[in-house]
Amino acid sequence: MIINPAEISAKDRYKLTIGAILPRPIAWVSTMDKTGKLNIAPFSYFTAVCNLPMTLLFCSGYSPEPGKEGKKDTLRNIEELSEFVINLTNEETAAAMNLTSALLPHGQSEFEFAALTPLPSETIQVPRIGESPIAYECKLQRIVTVSDQPGGGSAIFGEVQCIHVRDDLYQDGSINLKLLKPIGRLSGSSYTYVRDTFDLDRPTL
Amino acid sequence: MIINPAEISAKDRYKLTIGAILPRPIAWVSTMDKTGKLNIAPFSYFTAVCNLPMTLLFCSGYSPEPGKEGKKDTLRNIEELSEFVINLTNEETAAAMNLTSALLPHGQSEFEFAALTPLPSETIQVPRIGESPIAYECKLQRIVTVSDQPGGGSAIFGEVQCIHVRDDLYQDGSINLKLLKPIGRLSGSSYTYVRDTFDLDRPTL
Repeated sequence: MIINPAEISAKDRYKLTIGAILPRPIAWVSTMDKTGKLNIAPFSYFTAVCNLPMTLLFCSGYSPEPGKEGKKDTLRNIEELSEFVINLTNEETAAAMNLTSALLPHGQSEFEFAALTPLPSETIQVPRIGESPIAYECKLQRIVTVSDQPGGGSAIFGEVQCIHVRDDLYQDGSINLKLLKPIGRLSGSSYTYVRDTFDLDRPTL
Repeated sequence: MIINPAEISAKDRYKLTIGAILPRPIAWVSTMDKTGKLNIAPFSYFTAVCNLPMTLLFCSGYSPEPGKEGKKDTLRNIEELSEFVINLTNEETAAAMNLTSALLPHGQSEFEFAALTPLPSETIQVPRIGESPIAYECKLQRIVTVSDQPGGGSAIFGEVQCIHVRDDLYQDGSINLKLLKPIGRLSGSSYTYVRDTFDLDRPTL
């Protein structure tokens, strides 16, 4: 079946990415505005870029649906302070992470709403989420805006200044997957556990 | 535990991203050079960006380890023709996808090595992988290079021209997850199945 994205609805285009490009890791992003108001929102268009400089990116959309403006607070805050924390989530923090996707009245903090603990960062003003197993303090490196119209989006590149890892997770330089208990984002309201794994040996010639 | 990325080795930085930011979807990228030679390589630093224009990106690294130059063919080919196909992989194509991560002698095609079928694309010259369940024909939109030094990387943005979906997967505008059988990339040689899932209802105020 051949589909021309120009000939289908915005919703169907969305479903052909969100429902196909998966499982996705989740960037649970904490930000602050100039007046010190805190925000948290989860983003699943998220990837590492490279290790020197250590760089991560996530994408923030310009929703075609009125009322779904919550995520814009994240981008606005980053434009104001040029700082953010990418916290990771896992099985233990999934319910709280989900609560932070609520569209709260402007000015109400997701930290309070989801009963999460803001902890001071080492290198930036924006606090991290204390309950998160791994958190990357980031300084804004660049914002690449593909389109700022409805349906468009921006890729927000952050340069990692400092990494917080829950003590028990870090063993001989590696993260213990069984203790991390990561989750992956699927479409709709679905997530996957990462428990049922397999190995493929790298091919040798 | 607080880790300063400037104070750890390149390998440990790598492990703190690849072993933590997961599960990752896989872009199984087919490209062609000016002379028509074909290449395939898998990339797990991969995300959608937005839906209008429908844009995907993946990141290609500049490896600090000599000999691991294979992925650069992908970037070089994209710079030559400004076109590529992001094919998705799944349980059925995982073994073939893994074979395409081999470092073949220059000029040998991964299509042959992994016994994959190049099928003509609709809108670009670069063929897609016939065995892939879903494939996005992309025209290069932009390359954002964070650093081209060892350990650095580039984000390659593609604008989707056309989507191929295996007929049985597309039902009422949605992709059937159980039939797609996606896999997610973990660290080392590990992958996760996406079979054990759960739902979290979006919070309402």
